[in-house]
Amino acid sequence: MSFDRGVHTLRVSAKLFAENRARLVQALKPHAPPNSVVVLAGGVEKNRYNTDAEDLPFRQESYFFWAFGVHESECYGAIDVNTGKSVLFPPTLAPDFAIWNGKIEPESWFKEKYEVDEVHFQSEGKIKSVLNTLGTQNLLLLKAYNEDSGNWLEPVVLPDFASFKTDEKLLYPVFAEARVFKTDAELEVMRYATKIACDAHKEVMRKIRPNMYEYQMESLFRHISYSTGGCRHLAYTCIAATGENGAVLHYGHANAPNAKLINDGDLALFDMGPEYNCYASDVTCSFPSNGKFTDKQKVVYNAVLKASNAVFEQAKPGVRWTDMHILAERVILTDLKAAGVVVGDIEAAVEARLGAVFMPHGLGHLIGLDVHDVGGYLGDAIPRSKFPGLKSLRTTRTLAERMVITIEPGCYFVDTLLNRALVDEKLSKFLNKEVVETYRGIGGVRIEDDVVIWAKGNENLSASVPRTVEDIEKFMAEARA
Amino acid sequence: MSFDRGVHTLRVSAKLFAENRARLVQALKPHAPPNSVVVLAGGVEKNRYNTDAEDLPFRQESYFFWAFGVHESECYGAIDVNTGKSVLFPPTLAPDFAIWNGKIEPESWFKEKYEVDEVHFQSEGKIKSVLNTLGTQNLLLLKAYNEDSGNWLEPVVLPDFASFKTDEKLLYPVFAEARVFKTDAELEVMRYATKIACDAHKEVMRKIRPNMYEYQMESLFRHISYSTGGCRHLAYTCIAATGENGAVLHYGHANAPNAKLINDGDLALFDMGPEYNCYASDVTCSFPSNGKFTDKQKVVYNAVLKASNAVFEQAKPGVRWTDMHILAERVILTDLKAAGVVVGDIEAAVEARLGAVFMPHGLGHLIGLDVHDVGGYLGDAIPRSKFPGLKSLRTTRTLAERMVITIEPGCYFVDTLLNRALVDEKLSKFLNKEVVETYRGIGGVRIEDDVVIWAKGNENLSASVPRTVEDIEKFMAEARA
Repeated sequence: MSFDRGVHTLRVSAKLFAENRARLVQALKPHAPPNSVVVLAGGVEKNRYNTDAEDLPFRQESYFFWAFGVHESECYGAIDVNTGKSVLFPPTLAPDFAIWNGKIEPESWFKEKYEVDEVHFQSEGKIKSVLNTLGTQNLLLLKAYNEDSGNWLEPVVLPDFASFKTDEKLLYPVFAEARVFKTDAELEVMRYATKIACDAHKEVMRKIRPNMYEYQMESLFRHISYSTGGCRHLAYTCIAATGENGAVLHYGHANAPNAKLINDGDLALFDMGPEYNCYASDVTCSFPSNGKFTDKQKVVYNAVLKASNAVFEQAKPGVRWTDMHILAERVILTDLKAAGVVVGDIEAAVEARLGAVFMPHGLGHLIGLDVHDVGGYLGDAIPRSKFPGLKSLRTTRTLAERMVITIEPGCYFVDTLLNRALVDEKLSKFLNKEVVETYRGIGGVRIEDDVVIWAKGNENLSASVPRTVEDIEKFMAEARA
Repeated sequence: MSFDRGVHTLRVSAKLFAENRARLVQALKPHAPPNSVVVLAGGVEKNRYNTDAEDLPFRQESYFFWAFGVHESECYGAIDVNTGKSVLFPPTLAPDFAIWNGKIEPESWFKEKYEVDEVHFQSEGKIKSVLNTLGTQNLLLLKAYNEDSGNWLEPVVLPDFASFKTDEKLLYPVFAEARVFKTDAELEVMRYATKIACDAHKEVMRKIRPNMYEYQMESLFRHISYSTGGCRHLAYTCIAATGENGAVLHYGHANAPNAKLINDGDLALFDMGPEYNCYASDVTCSFPSNGKFTDKQKVVYNAVLKASNAVFEQAKPGVRWTDMHILAERVILTDLKAAGVVVGDIEAAVEARLGAVFMPHGLGHLIGLDVHDVGGYLGDAIPRSKFPGLKSLRTTRTLAERMVITIEPGCYFVDTLLNRALVDEKLSKFLNKEVVETYRGIGGVRIEDDVVIWAKGNENLSASVPRTVEDIEKFMAEARA
């Protein structure tokens, strides 16, 4: 069976998840003790504080979803490493569920929908008895670390597990590593999610006018993503920044909620992406709110575009992502030198970490079921740097085919960073203070694409948005004609 | 200072919250031990599972918001019961916050914005020293029970509290009771939130057509609420049910996500409401997706409308809500008898709880900062009933001025309930099985208004949506002309 949100949306086969499970089993086999079974817990609905109101429509936990593709809450799942056999344990619903929440489907409905080998509703001792039937000796449980937040996903603990040996260390690195590399089926979903993001960004570019509010563009983006793309959830909180807010990297959160009036002349930096069937998109477009770049806006935009293009060309399999970050800095600083903002030797400026004054964030991150996807510091990653900019990288791995990574160079005029740099003797010598001052308040530019790494040449999933100054101005002028 | 989302949205003065604090202090004084100070904790941002992605833009905890009107996360607040003095403790932000999240404002900015008496950024021992300056002996902490979910809001515990006596019992009932009665300032916000809900519902009624998907109407509703009303958050997950889904009372959640195609002839039951400045709206409109009621749809609609009107007229101060629930049942059953669905003596049918077969939920609930607002079983409430329908009531209090309550009678043809009733000898004698069968699959009708109780006559905050069969058909025809 498959998932879709109507005839105008992508149909995603349950086979995507069967393939994922097969890959996980394959990767576990060399390491797992005999008769090992993976047991995973799905997510549980949460209420807002102590109320009885759902905080947000439930969204499945990503590891569980990767393995089972199941949207329902409160499930467990088991995968036999010996045989690859999969068992889903949905909750047993009370009869009144049918009154309040919808039809109670039988086990066979789940089996057909999700194409697992067995389905058993949860009941006392049921998981234990199924595990015994599988000949289980060892349970592989998921204790997953998040490299970016430092948070842990705690392993499921059930009374049913009492008679088995359990291992909480083996599964995480193997599982996270499997998630890093996307199958053809996963890529098809990611292409779709990113296409919807681009469609919504383009509609925003058509409709934006000075004297609207930033959040009205966020609202339009959400509406297009959901109504035309079937994307109920966003992959992250919308950043709909204009003017100086473009220099606030994570603008849009509750304390800075896209509430500013868009002024004539403001540059817009809109970083917004929906998810489809839990697969994320993450696209940033930067453009003038009135449709015409100023000269200074062009300087900044073209510097970032040049960096984006350079990285896209050079980010081949085997190339370390850290080097791409430095490449982007070098290109941006070179353009800023041509514009008179930066002075002196570019390599020396890079060495002094001047790049991080203008691009304090990392160049990009793996993306998949999570917008900042797992595995960035596994594999051949080098340890997280202590240096500005580089320490914000969410991965330091060498690139490989079937990784999907965002390429998102940016150039910002952040008062806090400029003020620090102008009084730092290692950095101030590379800055022309007078010219720097003329750029303050401009905000920033980020160009962010979701890119699949291929040996034959990378694939830009977000290629459909206008990219050059000329194309953007033409696109916006046509929408206003 | 005040809150708004632009010139087209409502300006809400910080004085609303000063008045709330004054009411709380007034109510606590007779009960609190000498030198008591209330200390509250604001909400904290949460990530999706173990990721670094915010789950949803942060939304303040309701008790804290009621007292301080503060949108920022991770704050504490204190209120001196002796003097009414208020102190806000926002988090101390690291300098790099300015790079990632926005401008770091000084204490004076918070003081001016939220009109509290003092503001101190959090630091080690700061809350303790401020409490000592106030001459604090007793801390009143909030351990709040939710009558509907059974969840607790746990009281804040800080090392700063070690030298004070603490009380976790006194505050909750007094605080919740204060929240039950809305001030003029609160009512102004609720009028606005409900007006936005009605505007968005009307836009949905204009745009709905057969062969659209339910979620496209949810998407449109969210967009209008946010873009024209400035409402980023919904008060609850949208129920955009059509056809037989109208009989699933809490349709729209993740396992039944408004994903059905709208068929020609489907009745729509759309229960959707945004919140503005955290104040909730909760409005349900029922109408034919193609703009024309069928005869059977008219029967059901008119039964519910008659019940709504009867309750609105009779729900005066001093009237017990439980009696209004029974009144609604009586009106609906009477109309169903006229249509041949129900037979026999109506009072005997009510006594046998036949009403709960057609309206299994409660007639309505208090509404305020939470859609199912606090306090429904405080005051003169009678204990929760064990009987069908009545046991789902979220309040059994007698009504009083300045309560805001939803009046939301409904009539549904729920297979599970009909099947049970038809084999229940106490109920089946009141049902004409042949006629009942002809209504199956019709779904249901709910008409839900947010109503302020006044002695001079109630105020319907959601009066601007078309209500009668004639008005609805006329409104929808005009939008299609």
